[in-house]
Amino acid sequence: MQIVMIQDEIVPTEEVEPVYLDRGMFFGDGVYEVMRSYNGQLFAFEEHLERFAQSLAGIQMTGVDMEQIRARIHRAFKAAGIANAVVYFHMTRGSAPRERVWSDDLEPNFFLSVSESKDNPEVKARGIAVSTFPDWRWKRCDIKSLNLLPNVMACTDAAKKGCDEAIFVDDAGWITEGAGSAFFAVRGQTLQTAPLTANILPSITRKFTIEAGRNVGLKIVEESLTPEQAVASDELCVASTTKDILAVVKFDDTIIGDGNPGIYTKRMAEAFRSFVV
Amino acid sequence: MQIVMIQDEIVPTEEVEPVYLDRGMFFGDGVYEVMRSYNGQLFAFEEHLERFAQSLAGIQMTGVDMEQIRARIHRAFKAAGIANAVVYFHMTRGSAPRERVWSDDLEPNFFLSVSESKDNPEVKARGIAVSTFPDWRWKRCDIKSLNLLPNVMACTDAAKKGCDEAIFVDDAGWITEGAGSAFFAVRGQTLQTAPLTANILPSITRKFTIEAGRNVGLKIVEESLTPEQAVASDELCVASTTKDILAVVKFDDTIIGDGNPGIYTKRMAEAFRSFVV
Repeated sequence: MQIVMIQDEIVPTEEVEPVYLDRGMFFGDGVYEVMRSYNGQLFAFEEHLERFAQSLAGIQMTGVDMEQIRARIHRAFKAAGIANAVVYFHMTRGSAPRERVWSDDLEPNFFLSVSESKDNPEVKARGIAVSTFPDWRWKRCDIKSLNLLPNVMACTDAAKKGCDEAIFVDDAGWITEGAGSAFFAVRGQTLQTAPLTANILPSITRKFTIEAGRNVGLKIVEESLTPEQAVASDELCVASTTKDILAVVKFDDTIIGDGNPGIYTKRMAEAFRSFVV
Repeated sequence: MQIVMIQDEIVPTEEVEPVYLDRGMFFGDGVYEVMRSYNGQLFAFEEHLERFAQSLAGIQMTGVDMEQIRARIHRAFKAAGIANAVVYFHMTRGSAPRERVWSDDLEPNFFLSVSESKDNPEVKARGIAVSTFPDWRWKRCDIKSLNLLPNVMACTDAAKKGCDEAIFVDDAGWITEGAGSAFFAVRGQTLQTAPLTANILPSITRKFTIEAGRNVGLKIVEESLTPEQAVASDELCVASTTKDILAVVKFDDTIIGDGNPGIYTKRMAEAFRSFVV
């Protein structure tokens, strides 16, 4: 590499900061996690750390010191001093001149941010609208990677339609999951969601939602749904780390139930709250 | 956002450099191009610029000043003073606290590098080995985006097997393209390659290779191939901006032809050279 240009400025190669040569930027060659704290306690810390390790393994990033990551998260969370926080962090394979094949001796790059959680009780009380988007994602959505352009496009499409979340529908017509959430339907006495495959993120909140569903007397069915089956359901909801369980009261153009959060969804959200306090 | 941590260092939010909040890093929310110069002349400059504009449109990055991009490329290329150069550039949607939905008022970020082309006449003379890899990429490979993790994984897998390129095979068993190249087979008097769909990058070198094929008397067939059909072909080759036309002499475990670059491939490479001088 002889010359680098950043915006309009030509920078001598030896002065280019490594962050500009981050494989995270060139390729999305890294993985991430998002966790939440409730009242000063990081929720499901070990589960998130374990999934992070799995994502690292999924892209063959070996030799990462998980104890160092653990210590960094605790230190930053403590320094931020936010009781109800969202902690985001990613690790990329490192910085190097752009070359698809990676070298095994790269030093990983780490980035973390702590923000105030934007819990919105009003949205929670009235539920959200969602819109469908084609599932353009890659075939390893079980890895929480930085390749998120399809999610970005789906979420922005939803926002432009006045919706709060996008729901991915694959080529075969099945709902996979939300662009930033797991997706659930309550049908009679059952709570239905897509099974965990390579096309689905092993969502930690999904796991707790399933537990909450059981606790309120629902039978769990891990089978994919079509949009037609979704709109004919008694209740719909999405679940994510940052927003836990949110009722879906509108799906594309169809009002779900009477347009208000359903009774089981409310009970599950309540059951979920018992996990976090 | 209250706190940012970079590696082990906690940085006050107001001091975080925008590059750390680049949507290119968080999401791969950007597009790129690679062009080459031969003897001081940028090859297929307008074609690359046009494809860049199409990629920007594909991810709904509007309002980008293409004349500014054109001027930047020329200025950096001139400053580098490399006759046979590889020019890489990307543009991301901009820097902002991490949020999937983008805001329309972001300022795009631009990065460009100019490097010496690593033409290797020896490799060109003897041809390359390729290995297959499942096509895990997203469904909009017609957009040249920064979501390249599947390409990175495929190329590294190939390198570990002693191969120079990975060839993607989709779920239905069809070859789509190389992880960084278009893929061609010579079968009798025909030159066969996959048709341009949403799963295939509209490769500029592909276009010139097709032209070269016609010039040496081959009939062009735009139909997908299976690996079985590939290994039974008379000749195979890949084409890319940085390496133009390269004979494939080994495909997974199978030697192609007599293990040397085929006659039509050599003629096409020669015809290609007539385009660039």
